[in-house]
This record gives sequence, C-alpha cells and structure tokens, in this order.
Amino acid sequence: MATTDPLVLFMPSGKRGRFAKGTVVLDAARELGVYVESVCGGRATCGRCQVIVQEGNFAKHGITSANDHLSARGAKEERYERVRGLADGRRLSCSSTIEGDLVIDVPQDTVINAQVVRKAALDRVIERNPAVQLCYVELDEPDMHKPLGDLDRLKKMLEQDWHYHDLQVAPHLLHEVQKILRKGEWGVTAAIHRDGPTARPTIIALWPGLHNEAYGIACDIGSTTIAMHLVSLLSGRIVASSGASNPQIRFGEDLMSRVSYVMMNPNGREAMTTAVREAANELIGKVCAEGDVARDDILDMVFVGNPIMHHLFLGIDPTELGQAPFALAVSGAVDVPASTLDLSANAGARVYLLPCIAGHVGADSAAAALCEGPHRQDEMMMVVDVGTNAEIVLGNRDRVVAASSPTGPAFEGAEISSGQRAAPGAIERVRIDKDTLEPRFKIIGVDTWSDEDGFAEASAQLGVTGICGSAIIEVIAEMYLSGVISEDGVIDGALADKTPRILQNGRTWSYLLHDGTPRITVTQNDVRAIQLGKAALYAGIKLLMEKLGIDHVDRISLAGAFGTFIDPTYAMVLGLIPDCDLDKVKAVGNAAGHGALMALLNRDHRREIEDTVTHIEKIETALEPNFQRIFINAMALPNKVDPFPFLAQQVTLPPRQIEQDAGDGTDSAAQRRRSREDRAARRSRT
Amino acid sequence: MATTDPLVLFMPSGKRGRFAKGTVVLDAARELGVYVESVCGGRATCGRCQVIVQEGNFAKHGITSANDHLSARGAKEERYERVRGLADGRRLSCSSTIEGDLVIDVPQDTVINAQVVRKAALDRVIERNPAVQLCYVELDEPDMHKPLGDLDRLKKMLEQDWHYHDLQVAPHLLHEVQKILRKGEWGVTAAIHRDGPTARPTIIALWPGLHNEAYGIACDIGSTTIAMHLVSLLSGRIVASSGASNPQIRFGEDLMSRVSYVMMNPNGREAMTTAVREAANELIGKVCAEGDVARDDILDMVFVGNPIMHHLFLGIDPTELGQAPFALAVSGAVDVPASTLDLSANAGARVYLLPCIAGHVGADSAAAALCEGPHRQDEMMMVVDVGTNAEIVLGNRDRVVAASSPTGPAFEGAEISSGQRAAPGAIERVRIDKDTLEPRFKIIGVDTWSDEDGFAEASAQLGVTGICGSAIIEVIAEMYLSGVISEDGVIDGALADKTPRILQNGRTWSYLLHDGTPRITVTQNDVRAIQLGKAALYAGIKLLMEKLGIDHVDRISLAGAFGTFIDPTYAMVLGLIPDCDLDKVKAVGNAAGHGALMALLNRDHRREIEDTVTHIEKIETALEPNFQRIFINAMALPNKVDPFPFLAQQVTLPPRQIEQDAGDGTDSAAQRRRSREDRAARRSRT
Repeated sequence: MATTDPLVLFMPSGKRGRFAKGTVVLDAARELGVYVESVCGGRATCGRCQVIVQEGNFAKHGITSANDHLSARGAKEERYERVRGLADGRRLSCSSTIEGDLVIDVPQDTVINAQVVRKAALDRVIERNPAVQLCYVELDEPDMHKPLGDLDRLKKMLEQDWHYHDLQVAPHLLHEVQKILRKGEWGVTAAIHRDGPTARPTIIALWPGLHNEAYGIACDIGSTTIAMHLVSLLSGRIVASSGASNPQIRFGEDLMSRVSYVMMNPNGREAMTTAVREAANELIGKVCAEGDVARDDILDMVFVGNPIMHHLFLGIDPTELGQAPFALAVSGAVDVPASTLDLSANAGARVYLLPCIAGHVGADSAAAALCEGPHRQDEMMMVVDVGTNAEIVLGNRDRVVAASSPTGPAFEGAEISSGQRAAPGAIERVRIDKDTLEPRFKIIGVDTWSDEDGFAEASAQLGVTGICGSAIIEVIAEMYLSGVISEDGVIDGALADKTPRILQNGRTWSYLLHDGTPRITVTQNDVRAIQLGKAALYAGIKLLMEKLGIDHVDRISLAGAFGTFIDPTYAMVLGLIPDCDLDKVKAVGNAAGHGALMALLNRDHRREIEDTVTHIEKIETALEPNFQRIFINAMALPNKVDPFPFLAQQVTLPPRQIEQDAGDGTDSAAQRRRSREDRAARRSRT
Repeated sequence: MATTDPLVLFMPSGKRGRFAKGTVVLDAARELGVYVESVCGGRATCGRCQVIVQEGNFAKHGITSANDHLSARGAKEERYERVRGLADGRRLSCSSTIEGDLVIDVPQDTVINAQVVRKAALDRVIERNPAVQLCYVELDEPDMHKPLGDLDRLKKMLEQDWHYHDLQVAPHLLHEVQKILRKGEWGVTAAIHRDGPTARPTIIALWPGLHNEAYGIACDIGSTTIAMHLVSLLSGRIVASSGASNPQIRFGEDLMSRVSYVMMNPNGREAMTTAVREAANELIGKVCAEGDVARDDILDMVFVGNPIMHHLFLGIDPTELGQAPFALAVSGAVDVPASTLDLSANAGARVYLLPCIAGHVGADSAAAALCEGPHRQDEMMMVVDVGTNAEIVLGNRDRVVAASSPTGPAFEGAEISSGQRAAPGAIERVRIDKDTLEPRFKIIGVDTWSDEDGFAEASAQLGVTGICGSAIIEVIAEMYLSGVISEDGVIDGALADKTPRILQNGRTWSYLLHDGTPRITVTQNDVRAIQLGKAALYAGIKLLMEKLGIDHVDRISLAGAFGTFIDPTYAMVLGLIPDCDLDKVKAVGNAAGHGALMALLNRDHRREIEDTVTHIEKIETALEPNFQRIFINAMALPNKVDPFPFLAQQVTLPPRQIEQDAGDGTDSAAQRRRSREDRAARRSRT
C-alpha cells in the first residue's frame, strides 16, 4: 500500500484506508471492518452491497471525492440495473473498483424492494452484525470419480467463497440437501448461523437459487403485554410490530400468583408455558401478515423477559424464584433452536435469550441496560422499569449495580379507589390551582382539558371513568404542591372550610377530583398506597446509590410503559425518583424491546451484555440493614432528609417541616437540607 | 522434575516418566496421556481408576517396582474397599501417590460389578477414549448475593474440576437442572459429549449423585441383517450383542429393488426409514434386556452401513444412488442427536455415522477399513466384503484405493439351481474324489460327513435341502480340481461314461451332488453364474491392483458373513480372490461392526477414518477401459492369464490349457504363467 494509493473514507463509520487502484470497494470495506451486506458473493445479483459516492472536496479528510474515481458500471452492474433497478447515485460495491480518492456512504436503510419504512422502537441506528448470514454459492455437479457428497461439496464451496471453516449442518437439512441443490441447478443460498467466536458456524437453512431475504424477531415478554418486532436481518429495518396480552394473566394477575398457580396445579407450569408460546406464535403470524413476510424466512429470534417470564417461556418451573434464595435455573444467555420452544419459523431458526441479572432482575432489565448503556459511559446513569416490581440498574463504565424493589400494583391503578388501567375515559393529567385548590384534568381520548370549552361534549360519550397510573402521580404531587397534603402525605382536613373539594371520609379526608358518575376522589388510603410504593422504589434506588457512594444521579432513563406516560417532574416531586437535572430524565419507552433488537441485529451486543452482566452487582434490598430507615424517610414527599436541589430549581416546593430524620435524632439534617434547597431556589430565580 | 524423582512406567501403553514423590498416580497417568477412567473426580467413590502395581525388577526399564512404592491405603480408599470391594492387588489411582519407582498396570477390563464377560467381535483390545465422559461434581448451594444460576454454577464447577471450557447444554436439560441438583443434594454427574478438537463440549445428560455407568451402541445395518453391540463406555466391555433381519427386505430383497420401491411409492422412503429405525429400537431394547441395562444409560451410538442403508437410516432419499453419477447426499461423517433419528435412548444421546467412501462403497466399508487398517501398515492389504455387491479396499499406508463390484446374488445361493441361504440342512462343505469323482459333503446342523457312518440317521430329520453360498464355492472348485469342469467352466460330458454323477441336462451337463429329495445337482448354468460373479469381483480387484501397480497382494481380509464361512483356499482356486500366501488370508467376521465399535470407544479412530477416507481413491470399475478384458480373463478358473504361484504351492492345480489371452493375441503370457506355476509346484514338493 503506497502513500500515493487512493484514500477511501467510509461513512457513517468514518473508517478509512488506502487501497491500490483496482481494489474492489466491497473488499476494501471488509478489510476496514465496515459492515456491508452481501448475499450473492460478488455476482451482482442480490443488490445488498449498494453504496453512494459522496462527491466534493472534503478538506477535513484531505479527500476530493468524485463519481469517476469509481470504475464505470460494468456488464454485471448494468444487468442488475436493468433487472432490479438502482436508485440514483447507487452503485454495487461488489462490482466497482477504486480508481481515486473516495468518500463512500454506506446507506443504513438499503431499499431493495418497496417496503414501508417504520420507525425503530427508539430512533437510533443499530450497527448491524447479525448472527445469521445468507451466502449464495454455486457448486460443481456430482462427479462419479470425485465421490464427495453433495452436502460436503456445499460445505467446501462455502469455505472457499465465504471462509467458513468446520461447518456443521442442522440435522433437518440432511434429507433436503439433494432436492434443493438440484432445484437450484447447483446454485443455492445457505443461511449460516454463527453466534460468538467459539461457536462453530452452522448451516441452518438452504434455498434453491438466490434467496435474498432473512428476517428476525425481537420480543419482550412482559407480565402483562408481549411486544414483538419483525426485522429484516439484512437491512436492519423494522418491517412490522405488534403486541398482545400475555395469556398467562388468566392463571395469575401478577408474577407471584403465577408461581403459586404452578405450585398448586400439577399441570400449571406446562399450561403457562404452552400459553405464552402460543401467544408468541400468534404474534409471529400477525407480524408476518402485516409485513408480508413468510414465516419460513424468519431465521433468528431474541426474547427477553423478567426471570419468571423467562423461565416459563423456556419450560422451566419458576417455583424456586418464588422464595429465598430466589435461585435462577439458568442465569447466562441461552441459545437454542426455535423448534425446541415450539416456535413456528424456519425449521432451522435459532433463539437467543439475554442473560438474567438476578432472581428478580431479568433478561428484560439486561436488555434495557444494553439499550441505555450505563456501562458504556462515564455519567452515573439509572435505568428504572416501574411495574409491580421495579427493576433498577445504576452505574457507569466503572461499576454497575442492580436491585429489584417490590413497588406493588399501585402505580398501575390497582389499590387506588378510583384507579384503573390506562384506557379512554381515564384521567391522565391533573393540575390543582394553588390558590383555589380547584382541579383541572385531561382524560385519555379527549384533547381538551376539563376546564376548557367543549370538554363536556367531547367527554360525554367516554365519560370520566377513573384515574390511571400516570395521573395518580400527578394528582398526589399536585396535592402536595398546592398544600392539600403535607409532606407526610396527610390530607389537611382544615381545608374543608376553604373548599368543597375536601370531603370527610370516615376518620380521614378525601380530595374530590371529579363530581360525576362515578364520583372520583383521592382518599387518604390512596395517598398512603402511593407513598408506600414510591418509598419502596426510592429506597431501592437509595441503597444502590449508597453502594456506589454517590449522592445524586446524572441521568435517569424511565423504561417501560409506565415510564412513557409519567411526567418526570411529578415523579421527582413525589420522590419516586432521586434528584437529577430534569433535562436528563427521559422516558425511553420499551428499552427492553430495543435492547432485544440490538442483540438481534448485532452479535457484539450479545457479547457485550453477557460480559456486562457478570460485572453487575446485585443488591438484595430487603436484607440491607439501612433499608428500613431509608424507606421510612422516603415516605415523605419528596423525601424526609434527602435534598432535591435540581428539582428546587425547576419547581417551587412547599416549605419543609423541621422534622426529625427517622434515624438521625437531630434536626440538623433537615435544616441543612432546607438551606440547600432554599439556596437552590434563590439561584433559579436570579 | 529431578532425575532422582521416581520413575513410573504404565502398562500396557509403555508410557513412562519421572514424577516427584507425592504425585497422585491418576495425575501422573493423565500427564503422560495414559487413559485412566474417572467419574467421581478423585473422591474415591466410583472405583473406575483402579490400577495394579507390578512388583519386581524390570531390568529392561531400569525399574524395581514394589507395592510399598505406592502410598499406603488412606481413609478414602479404605472406605471404598469396605463399601464396594477391591480385588486383590487393585488400588485406586486417584487416592494413591507415587513414593518410589513403579510399574503400573492399567487393567483393560476393569470389573466394577459382576458382569458377564463377552468376547469382543474380534478378540482385540480397543484403547479407550470415548466421546462421552461422566463427570461428578459438587456445587455450592444458591446464594441470593451471588445470583449465578444453578446451571451456570454447574458449568463453572465442571470447568474448575474437569477443565471443560465453554460448555454448551443440551436444550432438554434446561428445565430439569434444578430438580436434579436438588435431588442430588448438590452433587450431580454430568455426561459431557465432546467429539473432536473443534467441537464444543456439551452436557448431554445429568443425574443426581454419582452415576457410574455409561453405555454405547455399535451397530452395522446390513442389507439383510442388522447387528448390534451394547458396550460399556467406561470399561469398554461388550455387555450384550444381538441381531435381527432388516425389515426393509419386505420392500425389496436387494438394494436396487429398494431404490426402485422409493421411486415408485410416494411414501416408500418414509416407510423404509421408519422400518429400519423401529428395528434398531427393538434391537436396543433386546440388548438392554439381555445386558440388564437401562435405555436411559445409553449416551452414544455409532452406526455403519452401505450408502443406501446409510441414507435410508438418515431419512435421505436414496434415488440418486441408483443411477450415475451415484451422488451421495452426504459423504462425510455425520454427528446428530439420537432423537433426530427417532432412536430411544437417553434423551441427550448422540449418534455418529462413519463417512462413506463413495456412492457404492459405504460407511460399512470405511468401518471395515478402520478395523483391518490397511492404511496403518506397509504390506499391501486387501479388505473385501462379498455380498450382492462386493466392496473392495486395497492399499497400505502410502496409498489406498477402493471399488465396488456387482457380484450378484449367486454367492448367497440365489440363481443357483439348488442354492439356498445358509440354514440347517444346507450343504456347507464338499469334497470330490479325483479318481472316482464321487462327492462327499457336510450339511449345516450335522457334524458327520455324508460318507461317514451315522450320517443318514443324523440327517434324517433335517434332510439335505440344498447348497449354501460357501458350498457353491467349494463344489465348483472341487469340480475344477477333479477335472469335472475345465478351466473355462465347462462340464465335461465325456465323463458321463465314467460316472453316473454326470447327467445330461438339455444341451449341457450337470453334476449330481446328492440323489435325494430334493435331487441336488450343479448345473452348467450354476457354474456360469458363479463364474460371472467371481469374475466381476476379481476384475474389480485386478483393476485396483493395476492402479497401484502391483501384481500380488500381501494380505487378504475377508469380511462379512460370507467371508466367515468360505474356505480361503477354495476361494483362491476359483479365482475369486487373487494369489496370496494362504496363511495371510483370513476371515475377519463382521469387520464393519468391529470398526463401528472402535469408533464408538475411541474418538481418535473417528478422526483417523475421517482423514483416511479423504485419501482413499475411488475407482469406478465399470468405466475402466481394461475392465472387459480383465473380466473375460477372470471367467476362467482360477484365471486365464494371471499366475497363482502361492496357491500352486498349496494345491495341485490342473494343468493349464494353452489358450490365448483374451486381449493379448499371443500365447506367451499363458506359457509364462504355466512355467511359473510349474516351478512353484516343484518347489513345494521338494
């Protein structure tokens, strides 16, 4: 390689190198580690290796790139253009050579056919390096004098053309090979699965001729909802997405009741495994129909879920997870043929499950951690998924810790007097006027607020039916901010003189949110239920922070459905989450699902999370000696002792009562905290 | 390692080395590569590591070995002796240390329990190195603070104690692990399958506590008969053997008719696959019952068969094998889970099939070659299995060639007027008096010859029913030696005047072997049928010899049932086999079955035959230009042109006619041959 050889820069990776004139662009990319897909092995028939030349003077790189620094289209590429078409500016990198300096763009969404583009779960590009590769080869016909078997000649050609050594073959292909080879007139496409540097590559599927499509499934098995994406393994594009209720709900609403069901019903485990696998298969059918994809083209799948979902899906009895020491049957990543899990896809399809972090922090949390990547950066990042159990992962590239906190069902609307699941008609947003103590709210399905014109008509059909999880957070936070409840969560009965919104309810008081049918109030018990739930979550977080020796968190990712709908500010006012710059608190949607997608599309992510999980330290919150003290302090809004300076800059918090720290015995801690918050508040006003 | 360290010699391998005092004997063996079995990993509970100290002065090795050069029995070994018993002189090598020079014998048939000793198929010891190893480990109990899953802790302990890295787990074990671990109170025995240096080790089975038995199956699927051995993988001992008819016979007597059946019946392939697998399963049941072994203890199996049997067993359509270019679907070795072949053994059991050499020379021939080992030595060795097709392997360590010759069913009694399969009542031996031309014979089931007293009574019940394959050889050879037929196989009608044994039969003559009910004669057609069959075989052999540039063979192994019963001398008189020192012509019984056994008990043999097969050159006899000439010359007894000097030393052959070589046009070849034989005959008389 001479210094006068052309310099080639690939975007978006930025990798560059010098290559002699005449070097095939695809080879140059490969040599630099730039991932460019190819199925037909350079025959210019699959079109997957398309690139674009960026013309112009790129002073920063010292490259003047021009279209004619790439060889002119040859016969092969012309033929492809005639038969399949090439969009403007697109060139086949397998059939073009480097003739001068070049800046080459590798499109991340190579359009081969007119598929609808769907947004990724999160709008991030996943660099592709899938575990399954399609490889087209052409074999010599059998020769009586060279009696190597058909399958053996196939393996030899795959070794020669694609450099796969020591290939295994999925057993079901043994009796199909001869037919397929002859049908393809000795040209066939092999799907080769190779996951990990020590794994032997395996031919898992075979088609006659050039087969140019390969799909994968990324699926998050939630306790309540199963979410699935159908993805092209070649282009990385999400082709279809769908979801369904987890049918195990009929055996038990929550996880522990499903464990009980197993313990009390001899066929319970089997029934629940069958139910979830059937649901997965139905979803596969749905996404295939929606994406117009054949099931037979699905070659790889990634599933995530919490440990009990994970075990039931694998057919493992989850009983041990229901009691200390909460022993996982398997914590490491799992790699099995899809057929062993009764999943209907290509007969050779594979399934990968991410590792579980601990008995209550599962593959879904690992996937969320993979997605958000606390371990990939320097800031202290917290990823939290709030459900009946909250899973918390906290750390940075130096150290990561994890815990599970039993928050209970309050955040989903259960145990709340007017609580309900999010559905049209449910109150989802609430504001309470600090002076009048009058509420205004918004319901799901209607755009106008309750105090705006047209609300009555707009809401007439749906009605105002109850309060959903995100609204619970808001209404209680607003009740605190407006003084309806104290920092200890007590509804102030004295306010009954000021406003008809405060109603007596036995020996306690309630706040009337909506006087309709039904009548929607927030009771003292409701407030307590939320306090208990949020205190459990905060205590788990605080214990992790103490383990890491930190007093604040730099970044918070709220994962899961709940995270998507709660207002981070209100969550912080409640003290559900610790103090943090609110600009760095984000809902990240189904991070677990996105993590599954990352693992599906890139083997390196699998190795990454497998390694990371071995370093994540699991804290068993209930056993920590500080837990009780921290929990009690966390009952108060936002917290009895911990300061919230970042929050105070954004929101005017009510003055703190000078109370005793539950464990401290002095009021100096409270005073110090109040001073800190007052200073912060003053700073924000100047 | 000092030169004053004790010197230890292991027998029978002869490996030796110096080890510091205090070195555990088992460790020393392993370091030298001496295979000593151990399941319990040094806990002195399995008893598999037993050795014997050979006392005395071994001047050749410079070792004076004594019992007290081994540490005295410790508590562990005492306990084993109390509980399980140790035969005199036996010591547990895992619990004894080296304290002085030693000669240590590693018994090849370690008796753990009182099993009946059966002879191996061939009385040879197979050095053991099985693909499945039993490994006992003890795990820590689960710990909430160290949330590694049960299966993951198992893998870790197997890595720590047994040095297995990167272990995979058979999927069916995922949901059984927890139960088994707890049942074993955290002590379990794992069966680990690892076949080949690039294969990842896989846990295929798991038992609670110490599980001290592992069995394997070696099976030869013949066209007519399926032969199976049940073997202990730990001791190498054959525990039971059995055989059964191949049920595919009902779909077609011979191989080609079975191929036709597939082509003409849409479910034919499936029916034949099902039939052979059911037969294999039944045989497994039989050998298990006979050996008092549980099916669940069978972990590894090796199957061999000719290519059509091989393919049908694997569920592969054999149609391509019925026509040029006779393309094998797979020629390399096959390694699949037993469950994929519907075989009932341990759920994690594996199956290995040896490679096939060519379209008509299958895994059975490869197994026979493995057994006899032409590639392992310097002499020119021929291994031949005579059936409807004869498979021939010829060569030495430098070069090996193989061919298949279609001999037809004559050697099994078909197409012979009085021919029948070997069964009680069939003539199996014949002698014809050179002067009187009177025959005497022996039938299967009766010890006396037909000319001895008591024969009539002894044979009254069975009757004399026909001539079996081995007797065909003898009677025709005797007819030649006595002059009844010419070297060209023509029955001499002129002899009808001399003896009532020569009968007219239309336009030809027959020889009357037995005038009973039925009347047993050898017709001219019978002779022709045998000539054609033996000429085909000889021609195949001769072509291989020409390829190797040799004019004689040093050693001949006659494999298969036919080989067991024919008299090599008569086979050579017939010219069925080439000239060779008769002391070096041996029947080797079911060499294919023994080769399967070798591959079952020692992974190195699998690698050996996989490598050897890649070097075996396949000759397609029917396409060779010389075939016709060689074939025609081979019609004569023993051969028209080839000399048989070795044979002439043992047997007085009739004088050769001075005929023309079919392709030579001169009589010099015949003359030269006759001179050579005459000289050889004179030498043998002096």
